[in-house]
Amino acid sequence: MENYLVLFVFIGSLLALGFALIMAKRVLGFDEGTDKMKKISRSIRSGANAYLKRQYSIVAAFFAGMFVILIVMAAFGMLTWFVPFAFVTGGFFSGLSGFVGMKIATFANDRTANACRTGLNKGLRVAFSAGSVMGFTVVGLGLLDISIWFTLLKYVFNQSPSQITSAMLTFGMGASSMALFARVGGGIFTKAADVGADLVGKVEAGIPEDDPRNPAVIADNVGDNVGDVAGMGADLYESYVGSVISASALGVAAFGGDIKAMAVPMIMAALGIVCSIIGTFFVRTGEKAEQKVLLKALRRGTNLSAILIAIAAFPLIWFVLGREYYTLYFAVIAGLIAGVLIGLSTEYFTSDTYKPTKNLAAKSETGSATIIIGGVGLGMLSTAVPIIIVAAAVLVAYFVSGGAADPHFGLYGIALAAVGMLSTLGITLATDAYGPVADNAGGIAEMAGLEPEVRERTDALDSLGNTTAATGKGFAIGSAALTALALIASYIEKVQEVGASDVSFDSFSVMNPLVLIGLFIGACLPFVFAALTMDAVGRAAQSVVVEVRRQFQHIKGLMQGKADPDYAKCVDLCTRSSLKEMILPTVIAIVVPIVVGLVLGYLGVVGMLAGATVSGFLLAIFMSNSGGAWDNAKKYIEAGNHGGKGSDQHKAAVVGDTVGDPFKDTSGPSINILIKLLSMVSIVFAALVVNFHIFG
Amino acid sequence: MENYLVLFVFIGSLLALGFALIMAKRVLGFDEGTDKMKKISRSIRSGANAYLKRQYSIVAAFFAGMFVILIVMAAFGMLTWFVPFAFVTGGFFSGLSGFVGMKIATFANDRTANACRTGLNKGLRVAFSAGSVMGFTVVGLGLLDISIWFTLLKYVFNQSPSQITSAMLTFGMGASSMALFARVGGGIFTKAADVGADLVGKVEAGIPEDDPRNPAVIADNVGDNVGDVAGMGADLYESYVGSVISASALGVAAFGGDIKAMAVPMIMAALGIVCSIIGTFFVRTGEKAEQKVLLKALRRGTNLSAILIAIAAFPLIWFVLGREYYTLYFAVIAGLIAGVLIGLSTEYFTSDTYKPTKNLAAKSETGSATIIIGGVGLGMLSTAVPIIIVAAAVLVAYFVSGGAADPHFGLYGIALAAVGMLSTLGITLATDAYGPVADNAGGIAEMAGLEPEVRERTDALDSLGNTTAATGKGFAIGSAALTALALIASYIEKVQEVGASDVSFDSFSVMNPLVLIGLFIGACLPFVFAALTMDAVGRAAQSVVVEVRRQFQHIKGLMQGKADPDYAKCVDLCTRSSLKEMILPTVIAIVVPIVVGLVLGYLGVVGMLAGATVSGFLLAIFMSNSGGAWDNAKKYIEAGNHGGKGSDQHKAAVVGDTVGDPFKDTSGPSINILIKLLSMVSIVFAALVVNFHIFG
Repeated sequence: MENYLVLFVFIGSLLALGFALIMAKRVLGFDEGTDKMKKISRSIRSGANAYLKRQYSIVAAFFAGMFVILIVMAAFGMLTWFVPFAFVTGGFFSGLSGFVGMKIATFANDRTANACRTGLNKGLRVAFSAGSVMGFTVVGLGLLDISIWFTLLKYVFNQSPSQITSAMLTFGMGASSMALFARVGGGIFTKAADVGADLVGKVEAGIPEDDPRNPAVIADNVGDNVGDVAGMGADLYESYVGSVISASALGVAAFGGDIKAMAVPMIMAALGIVCSIIGTFFVRTGEKAEQKVLLKALRRGTNLSAILIAIAAFPLIWFVLGREYYTLYFAVIAGLIAGVLIGLSTEYFTSDTYKPTKNLAAKSETGSATIIIGGVGLGMLSTAVPIIIVAAAVLVAYFVSGGAADPHFGLYGIALAAVGMLSTLGITLATDAYGPVADNAGGIAEMAGLEPEVRERTDALDSLGNTTAATGKGFAIGSAALTALALIASYIEKVQEVGASDVSFDSFSVMNPLVLIGLFIGACLPFVFAALTMDAVGRAAQSVVVEVRRQFQHIKGLMQGKADPDYAKCVDLCTRSSLKEMILPTVIAIVVPIVVGLVLGYLGVVGMLAGATVSGFLLAIFMSNSGGAWDNAKKYIEAGNHGGKGSDQHKAAVVGDTVGDPFKDTSGPSINILIKLLSMVSIVFAALVVNFHIFG
Repeated sequence: MENYLVLFVFIGSLLALGFALIMAKRVLGFDEGTDKMKKISRSIRSGANAYLKRQYSIVAAFFAGMFVILIVMAAFGMLTWFVPFAFVTGGFFSGLSGFVGMKIATFANDRTANACRTGLNKGLRVAFSAGSVMGFTVVGLGLLDISIWFTLLKYVFNQSPSQITSAMLTFGMGASSMALFARVGGGIFTKAADVGADLVGKVEAGIPEDDPRNPAVIADNVGDNVGDVAGMGADLYESYVGSVISASALGVAAFGGDIKAMAVPMIMAALGIVCSIIGTFFVRTGEKAEQKVLLKALRRGTNLSAILIAIAAFPLIWFVLGREYYTLYFAVIAGLIAGVLIGLSTEYFTSDTYKPTKNLAAKSETGSATIIIGGVGLGMLSTAVPIIIVAAAVLVAYFVSGGAADPHFGLYGIALAAVGMLSTLGITLATDAYGPVADNAGGIAEMAGLEPEVRERTDALDSLGNTTAATGKGFAIGSAALTALALIASYIEKVQEVGASDVSFDSFSVMNPLVLIGLFIGACLPFVFAALTMDAVGRAAQSVVVEVRRQFQHIKGLMQGKADPDYAKCVDLCTRSSLKEMILPTVIAIVVPIVVGLVLGYLGVVGMLAGATVSGFLLAIFMSNSGGAWDNAKKYIEAGNHGGKGSDQHKAAVVGDTVGDPFKDTSGPSINILIKLLSMVSIVFAALVVNFHIFG
């Protein structure tokens, strides 16, 4: 039976990739529009390609270096020989996910703009198809990597289940490293360009967003693709794969090496792909649809997929895992529900249809300082609801899975909850990823001078995208917390395995000074990380501002529309600064767990991981929600409230939005990756730390 | 010998109070200045008095309610009968500390302004004397409360050492509750008035700070007194008493009820008073002193006190505790050094003589959004240094005290480190508390139309105060973290005592789901708390803005200086809103630990306390340092850099400063109190939680 199980995972992966291919063809079948649109799209595409090329060459150097280090460690017997290779493939597939997503997005932007000339619904279809390519590429490549390695390790190298999951956790580390580079680098690029363009264009020169006279406008659109698309793709690849392999690893531990417990998370992911594909067919509306109807259509798709996987998971647990373990099904459901609830909470706090964001917009009446204070407060307050949701999900998942009798089962349950949450990633990511495509389409419509109603339609799509992105972020953050907890458990298993046999889950009391200090240091890491990435955005944005101001001053006739700005200069500036700035944060994420381990031992490492998970979860939600609320408060004012566009209130709201940009699109989402990368690095270097450490 | 020990503590307390009295007389001996100055000072004083009166009546109702609850619990045998009374006295003395400090500050403000007409040095002498009154009142009342209760419990009621410390921890809860009310209420008042005055006055109307035409100017000055003085007094009373009694409690636990181990922290505090008094005599300079020389003079005083206590602590440990425990001396030293280092780190990140704040000021060139992003980044980054310092201090204090052999000794060592840090509070608080007095003096100089050089001098004093306040905040935050850890240990002792005898310090693994969930919830609390207090400031400030705008519009001749604004209206507005807003955050701090305990049991409570301590420490540093850096970046620009006063850069910096106000003066400092109050509430309600809980 086991052989059929992996076959099923493989088929799921191919289904996803095939579906992505069909969607890609569908996108490419649409018309690109006018020559001007084509030209703009081409410059965005070439800017994005140039960025990714340079990013990948830097990342490749990093991977080469890490590969050598891992080889050396393997030579000293501290790792198996699979680890260096698994590490590299994880990075490769993660990067590939982002690349494919970005590629299709840069082909879909002018097509979406052109489709919007016909109608809102057609525009949605193009953009959503592009989003689907990304969504299903991510899950398809994720399961492909998993099933290939599983097959190799089990059937070619005859490894034991625990050896298999051990090697697989390493490709998680590769995926997370790549994801962090992509998120941070892309996040800095997109926000530096965005902030730079807005600060000079909107605030100082008083020209509208995406005005072709703004020298940073192409960079801004390139940024949407390298950050919000390529970065997000790599990020969610990492989340998806991380949740599956950590659950598999804990399954092996709980079920004493039973391969079935390891297969269940993988098959659940494969089932989720089928459910997601079915869901996409229900995302359609009549020709003359309003925004609300469109949202309903998207919701119908994601909800249907969630319901389907909720149904399908039951027989999976019952027949594959065994009927005596049927209560683990409820852990999966707890995860699914928690994901949905966190999404709703995010929406409540950041959508302008609810009170918090409306109140925030009202604070613009007293200037930018009060809207900043209000937004920070809103974000901090909004952490309470997801914390309670995650706490409840952990409690339920742990105890229904039998954690009271044996913690291994409880932890497996928590990991399954994360898989449940992410199982329908194919479609949730599709509804999320189409947003940046619509955003780009709007930019192209503006620059190409299309009819105003086109821009209105792309704006409607874009703002719809903000709402679905909120749901997507809920899943990403919630699953990150659960996966991180599962990875801490995996780390402890690993510590036992490599020599510290007297260690158990009970060995890590918060009153132990090493655990406690680890907790402090770990909790500090997300703060430092957020600071570094925000500073990076600030620095990069400042250089863009200076350049844009320079062009406005020195290029004659630019403001009158008689001369073209030097777009490429801004793209190049963003590329260079974001690539320079992405290195330090990522290196910190890799070096700190090793140093903490060498000084404080594994007790300190577990404290650090727990601290980073808890504070990272809080900080990620705080920053994402503050940023989202500022963005939507600004949009709410632009819709004609509190004085509308151009008023002092609007200017105050633009300041809020600008502050929120790096919060929600650079620092916030990177923290999700950080907390998992810390665990994975710790796992890979566990043997080193257990053998060499100063305290403990 | 024991009887002499408590006598020594009592004498220390009387020395401090006597010294405070002498200083108070000295302050009152100075001349008040012109009639106009007297009149202004009187209106500030009466506003502050009116506020405190109403605040105390609300707090009294709260204390009455809690008293009844505690009496009922005592009747059910869940507390001793001392607890309700101890609780009330703790609150009373904490409130009294704030009251005395504020009283003298409101008498010293016009006197300082008047002294500044003669020279900078004379101004410093008046302000520093007023600060000394506050500093020594706080420590004197703290030790008085401790020694009275100790005498009563030991000699009148013949209680055992562990019963004594148990009752004493309760007056810690009283002190913390009062401190939280005072900090939050006062903090909201002062920042609502400050933000409100600045937003309309400086930013919109373009009139200078403290301009008498601004209707909120008196409220702003009242706020300095009720927030920065009365709030700080109650706050540091709580820190001081909390560190001493938690160390005493752990001493009793470690030394098996030996009264000497309990007395050592108290005597160290008494010795610290003597050292502080000696230190104050060295705060003097020649008549024509510059700002740098003044800072040196202040530093000489605090450094000397620190060196003296470092010397005096050794014989104390050697002779009182016993020579075989002499290594605990190094724990004390670790605490002292950590306090100084955290202060230096705060100064580095927030003073405009160093790079971080200079760079922040440069961000004003690209507008308010970049300076906000920069300041948030700076604050988050600045958490790393204090975290490492505290981690090192905990590690040293724990292991030198013999924690490896017996954790009780290690935890006692950590508690002694906190006492070491705070032992010279008398003088550090004096150098801290004189700042608001100088600030007020500046306001009076402006409003009374004194010569410009007077304002320059008060500004010099004020800015000097910002630097010393940074050091003070370092001590407050560092000691809060260490004290909170000690209190968690006390909580665990308490849990054992009231029935859960199988519990040990090893029972609280982060992998236990209840501890873990507690960690998440606890870590979330400071975020929620900060959000609530900031929102409160935002709301209150908005109402001030509306009122000030209204007066500018409707009072004819106001802007021309021909008509007086309605100051009292703004004071009243601030009073009402801050008192309304202070209730919810404090109630949350008291209710949440009880609810968490009833649901998740003591495992969840310990997780919650650890989570709150860690995230609270980080958030407090982040918010204080961001706020401090924005404030000084603005001052740096006002000193003529980046365009100077009135430039666009300055306007951007004012937005930063305004955002920073609630960060550094409302939310940040309140969090220190919060994390200790959570522990103390948990300790008082331990018996309830151990007997009734759902999980665990």
